[in-house]
Amino acid sequence: MSYGGYGGGFAPPGGGNRAPPPGADPQLWSWFNTVDTDRSGAITATELERALINGDWTPFDLDTVKLLMSIFDTDRSGTIGFNEFSGLWKYIKDWQNVFKHFDRDHSGSIDGQELRDALAQFGYNLSPPLLDLVQKKYANQTVGHGAPVPGISFDRFVRACVVVKQLSEAFGKIDTDRDGWIQINYDQFMHTVLSLP
Amino acid sequence: MSYGGYGGGFAPPGGGNRAPPPGADPQLWSWFNTVDTDRSGAITATELERALINGDWTPFDLDTVKLLMSIFDTDRSGTIGFNEFSGLWKYIKDWQNVFKHFDRDHSGSIDGQELRDALAQFGYNLSPPLLDLVQKKYANQTVGHGAPVPGISFDRFVRACVVVKQLSEAFGKIDTDRDGWIQINYDQFMHTVLSLP
Repeated sequence: MSYGGYGGGFAPPGGGNRAPPPGADPQLWSWFNTVDTDRSGAITATELERALINGDWTPFDLDTVKLLMSIFDTDRSGTIGFNEFSGLWKYIKDWQNVFKHFDRDHSGSIDGQELRDALAQFGYNLSPPLLDLVQKKYANQTVGHGAPVPGISFDRFVRACVVVKQLSEAFGKIDTDRDGWIQINYDQFMHTVLSLP
Repeated sequence: MSYGGYGGGFAPPGGGNRAPPPGADPQLWSWFNTVDTDRSGAITATELERALINGDWTPFDLDTVKLLMSIFDTDRSGTIGFNEFSGLWKYIKDWQNVFKHFDRDHSGSIDGQELRDALAQFGYNLSPPLLDLVQKKYANQTVGHGAPVPGISFDRFVRACVVVKQLSEAFGKIDTDRDGWIQINYDQFMHTVLSLP
């Protein structure tokens, strides 16, 4: 085997020679250990951002990384262990398939029409002005002083979908009679919005 | 003069020898140019984060930097020029005085009681559970694997106050009869929340 975690041979960069848990993907274990430089067994959002550079996708925005952390850091420790990392990795891989499916023109980014189709498939039929707002909010901003990247890149597509889902669920929890209208006071409004990651 | 922007003498690091605009603070102009490495005259959120390290405060979280950008980048270009940067710098200095005023025990961070006093002074009398939520959301998280910093640091205090202000204003816009209750549909709810920076 090419991965030498078991006491000999090739040591992955920064990974040392800790044995991976039974059934662990050796490459994933190696990546996890590469970013977990202090060998604490847990990685932070900033470290996760570094780990995600190893995937078959464009780099992840720290905001997206934090959103993912908030989903997988179930004990709210601020860090995720290897098992959570594995779950998160699979989650991202699944999203990658979704992204490829909806990126019909294979441009590597999602345009307004493709976003509408994706959200509709997930059961969110947003009004055209709302779709426009989501599209603008998550479209890639100018990076450095280069030209803006058109459309929504992979990581921001994940974020857009997750945010729409979380907001819709928050609304749905209050809209108990399912008529599409809610009556809330200031305190409830603030609670609802501030409780989102 | 110690600043040699006018064609000779000492060149500030990275600042080159461009002349500052009339009336500009030379040190601020030097900092601005240090981070504006490509001399475009405009800096991005990531560059602003680097500029803010020069202040008399703890480093700013990128999320806080982006929130500040959203306030001062009035033309939504994704960057801020020197004049906007000067305004932002003054804004932060003003916040620093507010922070020092409410940090009664001079601990360098704001605790729950101090946060309540600050928000009340700004006219936001939040309920105890809501205050608790804000306090927890903006309390400093574990940095790396060290012990969590207790309380709310300067940059996160600014963020907490600005977010409470923006949310309260968003609610107030809908609550036209000022009774503290709003009735909104799904589309309005999504619009309200997604329009926030």
